[in-house]
Amino acid sequence: MLKPWIEAQARLVEIAAGRAPADLVIRGGVWVNVHTRETIPATDVAVACGRIAYVGPDAGSAIGPETQVIDAQGRFMVPGLIDAHMHVESGMLTPAGFAAAVIPHGTTTIFHDPHEIANVMGLEGVRLMRDESLIQPISMFTQMPSCAPSAPGLETTGQPITEGEVAQAMGWDGIIGLGEMMNFPGVAAGDRQMLAEIAATRAAGKTVGGHYASPDLGRPFHAYVAGGAADDHETTTEAQGIARVRQGMGCMMRLGSAWYDVQTQITAITEKGLDPRFFILCTDDSHSGTLVHDGHMDRVVRHAIDCGCDPLVAIQMATINAASHFGLERELGSITPGRRADVILTSDLATLPIELVVAQGQVVAEAGQLLVDCPRIDWPDAARNSVHLGRALVADDFAVAAQGQSAQVRVIGVVENQAPTKALTAELPITGGVIQAQGDTCHIALVERHRGTGGVVNGFVSGFGYQGRVAVASTVAHDSHHMIVVGTDRASMAAAANHLGDIGGGVTVFRDGVELATVHLPIAGLMSDQPAMEVARDAQAIVKAMQNCGCQLNNAVMQHVLLALVVIPELRISDLGIVDVRSFELVDLIVDP
Amino acid sequence: MLKPWIEAQARLVEIAAGRAPADLVIRGGVWVNVHTRETIPATDVAVACGRIAYVGPDAGSAIGPETQVIDAQGRFMVPGLIDAHMHVESGMLTPAGFAAAVIPHGTTTIFHDPHEIANVMGLEGVRLMRDESLIQPISMFTQMPSCAPSAPGLETTGQPITEGEVAQAMGWDGIIGLGEMMNFPGVAAGDRQMLAEIAATRAAGKTVGGHYASPDLGRPFHAYVAGGAADDHETTTEAQGIARVRQGMGCMMRLGSAWYDVQTQITAITEKGLDPRFFILCTDDSHSGTLVHDGHMDRVVRHAIDCGCDPLVAIQMATINAASHFGLERELGSITPGRRADVILTSDLATLPIELVVAQGQVVAEAGQLLVDCPRIDWPDAARNSVHLGRALVADDFAVAAQGQSAQVRVIGVVENQAPTKALTAELPITGGVIQAQGDTCHIALVERHRGTGGVVNGFVSGFGYQGRVAVASTVAHDSHHMIVVGTDRASMAAAANHLGDIGGGVTVFRDGVELATVHLPIAGLMSDQPAMEVARDAQAIVKAMQNCGCQLNNAVMQHVLLALVVIPELRISDLGIVDVRSFELVDLIVDP
Repeated sequence: MLKPWIEAQARLVEIAAGRAPADLVIRGGVWVNVHTRETIPATDVAVACGRIAYVGPDAGSAIGPETQVIDAQGRFMVPGLIDAHMHVESGMLTPAGFAAAVIPHGTTTIFHDPHEIANVMGLEGVRLMRDESLIQPISMFTQMPSCAPSAPGLETTGQPITEGEVAQAMGWDGIIGLGEMMNFPGVAAGDRQMLAEIAATRAAGKTVGGHYASPDLGRPFHAYVAGGAADDHETTTEAQGIARVRQGMGCMMRLGSAWYDVQTQITAITEKGLDPRFFILCTDDSHSGTLVHDGHMDRVVRHAIDCGCDPLVAIQMATINAASHFGLERELGSITPGRRADVILTSDLATLPIELVVAQGQVVAEAGQLLVDCPRIDWPDAARNSVHLGRALVADDFAVAAQGQSAQVRVIGVVENQAPTKALTAELPITGGVIQAQGDTCHIALVERHRGTGGVVNGFVSGFGYQGRVAVASTVAHDSHHMIVVGTDRASMAAAANHLGDIGGGVTVFRDGVELATVHLPIAGLMSDQPAMEVARDAQAIVKAMQNCGCQLNNAVMQHVLLALVVIPELRISDLGIVDVRSFELVDLIVDP
Repeated sequence: MLKPWIEAQARLVEIAAGRAPADLVIRGGVWVNVHTRETIPATDVAVACGRIAYVGPDAGSAIGPETQVIDAQGRFMVPGLIDAHMHVESGMLTPAGFAAAVIPHGTTTIFHDPHEIANVMGLEGVRLMRDESLIQPISMFTQMPSCAPSAPGLETTGQPITEGEVAQAMGWDGIIGLGEMMNFPGVAAGDRQMLAEIAATRAAGKTVGGHYASPDLGRPFHAYVAGGAADDHETTTEAQGIARVRQGMGCMMRLGSAWYDVQTQITAITEKGLDPRFFILCTDDSHSGTLVHDGHMDRVVRHAIDCGCDPLVAIQMATINAASHFGLERELGSITPGRRADVILTSDLATLPIELVVAQGQVVAEAGQLLVDCPRIDWPDAARNSVHLGRALVADDFAVAAQGQSAQVRVIGVVENQAPTKALTAELPITGGVIQAQGDTCHIALVERHRGTGGVVNGFVSGFGYQGRVAVASTVAHDSHHMIVVGTDRASMAAAANHLGDIGGGVTVFRDGVELATVHLPIAGLMSDQPAMEVARDAQAIVKAMQNCGCQLNNAVMQHVLLALVVIPELRISDLGIVDVRSFELVDLIVDP
């Protein structure tokens, strides 16, 4: 459908000149022009080869016998929305499933960083995500993950990403730049590999995604900026956002399923009156439930408007600003000649109902219904069999041996609604030479699942509130995505872990050795090949099951899957041991008396 | 001095981190931030490898024993100014001479289209201009000329530019894109070569300069836009400018020596309140006298401010807007890390006195004085001997034979202060079988000078007001740059023409067979190798001499050199004959009775 501009050029000229018919004509809309930031009534749009050929008062001459004609009926024609930075895997969906979920919400372009699958499958995982992205009816650009492992020396990924692989991927079709460079201490310290990955991206003329997750706006920040990142989505305050833009970066403001960073930063525009062109909207992470129930970029734009942002500015931040940032201003992001014909029809700019969606010249959704196929690749065995436990686990794999009556142990303290954990300690009893979970302190284990080593690292965690004989296991385990098993009962933990081994990955809840709920994630142990609706339903069942087991935490699943994220303080678990993320070192589970 | 960013990266990080000294530190300025559109007081800037390493409150750690330190004394630090579209040759200077003239005015980046030399020397001329551009202490990017000849079939250039040469040049270092695609009828008609030149530019990821010099905003305009031009500097009204930006083009607003297109269009921003990001300032054509006496881009920015534009917006239009347009937003156009260190110090944002200029990290001018060398290439013989008359011209070469008492002839009617001419006729007496000039109607001749054919095309022109035995000759003769000779006296015309043949080109005024004044333009017959000051002085002497010969026209030299511009109505002269530009056809000099 979509032709490269060069192949479309001659036909676009013929149509604009009035000498040839178009594939599609939209008549009588109000043109939301993101170049001038104005609305222009009574406008027609003619489309061919998936691209805009003509925008003006009368495309009548472009209507031939084969031309599809849509009467806009005076509705607004808004450019298709762009998610400037996100991770498809966060929806537990593959690119096809994600596209299918977001198209009815008006998203026509996605810039995604397949960081999670890269941790499982390395460059091959990136290539597979890129492959499926390239065949979608919307524009899905892949960012090459920059940091796998996220914390070298503190965890082992399925495959590391090397600087040579980054350089190689920059030559691939569909790779738009480098995924978030999250090793910000490394960049600021002049780490050779990190600088080389950035340089390779710049050498390819592509965009370097940033991630500076620190409130420090002093020397480390300036050094990170000098390293070459072009944007940052980790800002959470107005001052942080403004600091990024002042330094020549794009400030990507997030509204994800669990990120609420638009409201705190958009005052830079609504109150400070700064030039909005380098402020960009994105989601970073959206769960399937959010996509199904709340929306995607339409939700973000509505939210920005609710925060007091001029609707036209909010739309710019989700269209032309993102397109310009990635050097694609002449390719997409506005309803102007030559660009990909991505158009939303909506009756109201403030509430933004997504009534009809055209992507690359094709009507892809209407009234919330997807009208096209989002093709899937044939995911290979390496992706479908990514959970390698090496052996059947047993209850004793989760036993921590110790001598004496009791032991002082480190405990990962979950804090509700916060990503950081607390580094706690607890005195736990020893029975039969094994430390026993007690009260709210239960077992946690990191089960190696990439190489089938049979390795299990044990620890303790508090804050979930589980009651009875419970276990929750997940092969989503940021960032290296081994398997995290949390439980009060070691036999249930083994059963849950083995179940995930059997089904190729997912999230599961067991009680008394019996499965209560499971999300199947057979693709790399991260993604479902089912539609978002079903994934959202299964994910909701997990939440219910955890609640039934006594866990009343908000976002309990997210708390679970982040317990191995050894880049966020204070205490985490990895395949290499217990990690104190305050000092970035492995520590003993049992505290010296 | 300037290193590619990739080679500078590691050092920039070290300096920003506070671990290494910079080459240059500017302390205590007010940061004019064109990303946020705000001013930020008490800011330091550290520079290394010709690039910005750090911008923030304290660059003290970057000051080592070898570091040059400039105290900004609370003055504004403005990004170096960018001329987004212009022709160096219009200043009758080579790139070196032009750079030397404009650096004290704060210009640090130029995008120039060597269209004139391309008409004389073809691709080789472009290469030479590119070569000299690349060695200047400021950033001079070359646009590959797209249309030589401007009017195929109506004129003969020294060398035509082919589509293959365009594709070839796109691979050259220093070529930023395609020069103004002025064959707008061709693009709108789907002309194969024109579309192919644009496509080759887009394939190289480069920017296509536009030129749609028609008030028609109907089908031809839309067809031209669909052809792929990214900008236009030919707009002269608010409606035209807005139309370009709405269609996704950059609107380049000109203030040249003879272009006054800012005031009429800037109301799109100052009154209509449109988003200014796609509005860009440029000069298009600046004479040496303008550069010496009035300024360059500083003059344009001041003028925009005088027209009511917010100074920060005006500065954005001469910095970041232009940089973004050419895909160079991360390379230059703002005072932010990684970018070329192009900084102006000024005490006042509205009047914009250019007090100190840093380009690529080097102090290049202070208080109007150039402080650096602008190196010249060794222009080859082909450039220095470009005026090939083939033989010595004699008075009879300018005689038009006819029979009878008188003849009705076509006369090119010069209109003061307008580029278009009038297609007039006059009844002239015949003496000795030769048509005689009479009254204000005098001779005009187009002397072939590229191939030494000895060809002379004769005609008549009115409006100059010459009195006595006068001749004015010029090898600047837009666009194909043969030699235009205007005179009341055929012997003086021959003398003037032969003089230009002897000196390798220029503009000269003769009276009674004696030279009154000459600008020597030995480079391609278009450019001097002297400084702008001397060229301006000589050009002024030409104006005086023309006045002494009775010509009181405003911009008389420009009127003279445009008489062969066979793309602007109504009547012109070319090496192929008299051209009626209303119908784009060659016509007989003598009107049938």
